Amino acid sequence: GTAAADEATTKGNLEIKSDDGNYSASLGGRIHFDTYLFDSDLEDPISTTDFRRARITLKGNIYDWSYVLEQDFTGGDTLSGYRDVYLAHEFLNGEIRIGQFKPFRSMAEMTSSNELTMLERPFSSSTGLYDGHQFQQGIGWTGVQDCYTLGFMAFNLRDAGTPRNEGVGAAGRLAWAPVNTDDLTLHLGTSVSFENNNRNSSDLVAEADYAGRRGPSQLMALTPGNLGGDATTAALELAGSYGPVYLQAEYTVGDFEGNYYLSEEDFEDEFGAPAPFYCDPDLGCFIDNQTVRTWYIQGSWMLTGEHKAYSKKRGAFSSAKPSGDGLWGGAWELTFRYDTMENANISDLEASSVTFGLNFYANRNVRFMLNYIIGDDDFTGDGTDQLGLRAQIGW
Amino acid sequence: GTAAADEATTKGNLEIKSDDGNYSASLGGRIHFDTYLFDSDLEDPISTTDFRRARITLKGNIYDWSYVLEQDFTGGDTLSGYRDVYLAHEFLNGEIRIGQFKPFRSMAEMTSSNELTMLERPFSSSTGLYDGHQFQQGIGWTGVQDCYTLGFMAFNLRDAGTPRNEGVGAAGRLAWAPVNTDDLTLHLGTSVSFENNNRNSSDLVAEADYAGRRGPSQLMALTPGNLGGDATTAALELAGSYGPVYLQAEYTVGDFEGNYYLSEEDFEDEFGAPAPFYCDPDLGCFIDNQTVRTWYIQGSWMLTGEHKAYSKKRGAFSSAKPSGDGLWGGAWELTFRYDTMENANISDLEASSVTFGLNFYANRNVRFMLNYIIGDDDFTGDGTDQLGLRAQIGW
Amino acid sequence: GTAAADEATTKGNLEIKSDDGNYSASLGGRIHFDTYLFDSDLEDPISTTDFRRARITLKGNIYDWSYVLEQDFTGGDTLSGYRDVYLAHEFLNGEIRIGQFKPFRSMAEMTSSNELTMLERPFSSSTGLYDGHQFQQGIGWTGVQDCYTLGFMAFNLRDAGTPRNEGVGAAGRLAWAPVNTDDLTLHLGTSVSFENNNRNSSDLVAEADYAGRRGPSQLMALTPGNLGGDATTAALELAGSYGPVYLQAEYTVGDFEGNYYLSEEDFEDEFGAPAPFYCDPDLGCFIDNQTVRTWYIQGSWMLTGEHKAYSKKRGAFSSAKPSGDGLWGGAWELTFRYDTMENANISDLEASSVTFGLNFYANRNVRFMLNYIIGDDDFTGDGTDQLGLRAQIGW
Repeated sequence: GTAAADEATTKGNLEIKSDDGNYSASLGGRIHFDTYLFDSDLEDPISTTDFRRARITLKGNIYDWSYVLEQDFTGGDTLSGYRDVYLAHEFLNGEIRIGQFKPFRSMAEMTSSNELTMLERPFSSSTGLYDGHQFQQGIGWTGVQDCYTLGFMAFNLRDAGTPRNEGVGAAGRLAWAPVNTDDLTLHLGTSVSFENNNRNSSDLVAEADYAGRRGPSQLMALTPGNLGGDATTAALELAGSYGPVYLQAEYTVGDFEGNYYLSEEDFEDEFGAPAPFYCDPDLGCFIDNQTVRTWYIQGSWMLTGEHKAYSKKRGAFSSAKPSGDGLWGGAWELTFRYDTMENANISDLEASSVTFGLNFYANRNVRFMLNYIIGDDDFTGDGTDQLGLRAQIGW
Repeated sequence: GTAAADEATTKGNLEIKSDDGNYSASLGGRIHFDTYLFDSDLEDPISTTDFRRARITLKGNIYDWSYVLEQDFTGGDTLSGYRDVYLAHEFLNGEIRIGQFKPFRSMAEMTSSNELTMLERPFSSSTGLYDGHQFQQGIGWTGVQDCYTLGFMAFNLRDAGTPRNEGVGAAGRLAWAPVNTDDLTLHLGTSVSFENNNRNSSDLVAEADYAGRRGPSQLMALTPGNLGGDATTAALELAGSYGPVYLQAEYTVGDFEGNYYLSEEDFEDEFGAPAPFYCDPDLGCFIDNQTVRTWYIQGSWMLTGEHKAYSKKRGAFSSAKPSGDGLWGGAWELTFRYDTMENANISDLEASSVTFGLNFYANRNVRFMLNYIIGDDDFTGDGTDQLGLRAQIGW
Repeated sequence: GTAAADEATTKGNLEIKSDDGNYSASLGGRIHFDTYLFDSDLEDPISTTDFRRARITLKGNIYDWSYVLEQDFTGGDTLSGYRDVYLAHEFLNGEIRIGQFKPFRSMAEMTSSNELTMLERPFSSSTGLYDGHQFQQGIGWTGVQDCYTLGFMAFNLRDAGTPRNEGVGAAGRLAWAPVNTDDLTLHLGTSVSFENNNRNSSDLVAEADYAGRRGPSQLMALTPGNLGGDATTAALELAGSYGPVYLQAEYTVGDFEGNYYLSEEDFEDEFGAPAPFYCDPDLGCFIDNQTVRTWYIQGSWMLTGEHKAYSKKRGAFSSAKPSGDGLWGGAWELTFRYDTMENANISDLEASSVTFGLNFYANRNVRFMLNYIIGDDDFTGDGTDQLGLRAQIGW
């Protein structure tokens, strides 16, 4: 019966590969289950439990073509649940992708959600600066050459869950790892992104969720969808790991096209506090082009001595693999981040988060994460904090 | 090619296990397709066809951890479609679960939807007394010791599809099978449940769907979500099987905290008939703490002689396995249930169902079920009946 | 470890079969990713990218029973995402199906979405004449006898995503392939369909999307859901292939029960132009029974010489299998269609599409399709055109 069988394997997933390597398929998934407890201040969010991710991932290859079809059931509707959904073709030491995937920008964004150091990505990702634009539809290429990781994408300004529109964008990223040994990695990177609204586009928005997920949001900048405005960003990345220690920093500047008026009421509704500048009684508050700056530094120390590996394919760090020598047979990691975002054109429009964390890795697939996030919104004066806990399994 | 292959098997599902037993994964599913025909009375529900369940189930283990990720596409939105979604760790002859699963209460609830004797569970389950609270998010343990099956869970008052809120609850169940041989099983059980509303909680509600699914509902008790009230229940279970005969009964008392007023109009809207007690012209109808009582007895006779097996893991009965000797090569079963629920504080607030049924098991995976449900709502006087038919396959 | 293993195989999918053939299961899927660019006229649709299909398909068999559970994540909600969802039993050289599947009518409808010659099906399918009624819930049989393909279905007028209602319908189709060799196929076919609205039924509607998907729609006929009206259709099919050339035509007449009034405003809202006949100032525009006629002819020429295979199971043509000798190692196909639909009772209520296309088949699973659609709506005078592009992978 097994004479003609292809090879079936499991590491918690289902995987079958043909003997000749021409075909393969796998079904994996992930569950991230969170508990959020807020220490409220001016804002008073609801403390609760929440599935952060519950995702199935189908992958496969057919000769030199491949596919990814990923659905996250936390999306609510299945269109919002699309994650990576594309077909790809091998090309120049990399692959051309067609469909929905992440534009190549922000080292934090390139990091898999299974491999995050903290519960959430910093503001320089689609959690903040590229709010709601984590996945876009289009065509791109990504590949690795020597110690360089490159990625380019041209896209329609939508994912499967957002309105059909004629906005377009493009993003590219270059990562360089001049040193990358078993014990030591040094990473430098840069990316640029350009987005142009057009018919039926949604607003381009930068937001700071300064007290963790499901906590309060501070709007940082807004380019209306119906006025054809642009948002442009440029970023620098610096990161490295040495033995059990790891550090990562990004600095990004964004320019959000403005040149519109908001009524004083609308301004307060959107930004959470009255305009700190003169508003014309007839025309309202003038919003000029907005410069947004965000940077973070994060790091960790593997208490059990493991080393965080670097993924050349992603140009980003993965998680350390537990040696199994720590308490309860797993690995332990202390983590820290300082993250801040400001609008340089509106006085005091700035928010920041300080996060301390502890991660326990039961094995390569299962982890628990604890974060204490000290939130600070200079614009509204809110100082809500969050204690966040995650139980995670990926397979 | 197959030298390194793990073991792949199918019983209609996909399953792969690693040679060393450290890893496994499977993909199963179920389709339950129903037809409902109503004999209307005061109520006149729409007769139609309906998918009761269309579900995929991913399961796997990674060393002493395991996961379940189950999605029912009848949910409409994917958050409502979450069923069992948790990670688990072996612990004390059982497992600790973290995520979404069923609180341990009600023998009928513990029975798999693939193994039901009737089309629907009785009122003592989330079909009635725990309306909308079949799955909750939290942490718990379940295990088997000798002839005892135990389960405990502490939970947030939500599942993935209901609003984020700060309500909490806890439930525990103990089942005892002092006799459990190939031919004879005797089961006794008890469970308690406590639920406490808090910020943003939905109402705690008991309802009787006395004429089957998609038929009319009679509200039995309501503890408003925004007043921080409690609902507490205690249940007794008695069941057994001997040869082809099986009997099961549960008796549950629930206390739903009240102490609020409804206007006469609202009372009639909610309960379907005018208040049968004095309502204050200014304040309305006073709803004090409500005692709800529900009990059922159900049984079946396998006409083809098979014996219903008892699952120690669940502390509940499974289906009989068809011997293949019956008409059309399958097994045949006659079924019966009497089910009733009442509010002891509001006169005549009582509903009951008498159900007669016939099941045909084509094989272990495929069955057809026919139910005739005679519904009776004492409060409104409605006597709608339902003829329900199910075609079911599980794999 | 592999001693007891069933057979695992992949052609981009996951598949396991038991050694004795009693069990099997597979997990496949498809991604169709489209780009639409409109040359607008009176109508001005949004040019954008869109996932046309992103679908997972579970199939399996358990002895002489089988199942299909298919979910398309483009549905938005999971009920709208149901495609084939049924259990089936081998019967008379075919199978009885119970659940949701396509009523047997229209050769174009019977063609798999992975095998379409053009981006969209012609008007004689659920893309037009049976608008929104591609899948229905019920029971049916389909099978092959000699050179005949037959299918019958009795159904409730709903799929999983449409309202529960008491409407019913039935459809049947007979296809005959008197000649069917490796190089030459001749196909004749006929089908009839009857649908009867009842309590809670949605309107029965015929529409012409004459400028491709996401373009403008011209309403052709409407039988209101709440009046209990009927829609009846009868169709003739003629098709054939010879070497690299293929031709297919269908002619369908539909009768949509009317006998109702629309206000002049409602008429213009629904049909996009003022009523071209006298409307009573008090009663409005009388809509009598409506006769709808639609026909198309489509064809293709495989530039690389392959032959389109005929599927006896479907009674419809499949795609040609690329020989690998063409440019870029694939197959190339030139395509053409003329498609038209008219309401014989309302003057000038007619729309048509002329489509030219080019398909590139990279391999059996991956293709790219280009269509230029020249749309023409005689009723409104609109002449919007569409350039459509699809990247497709099925596994």
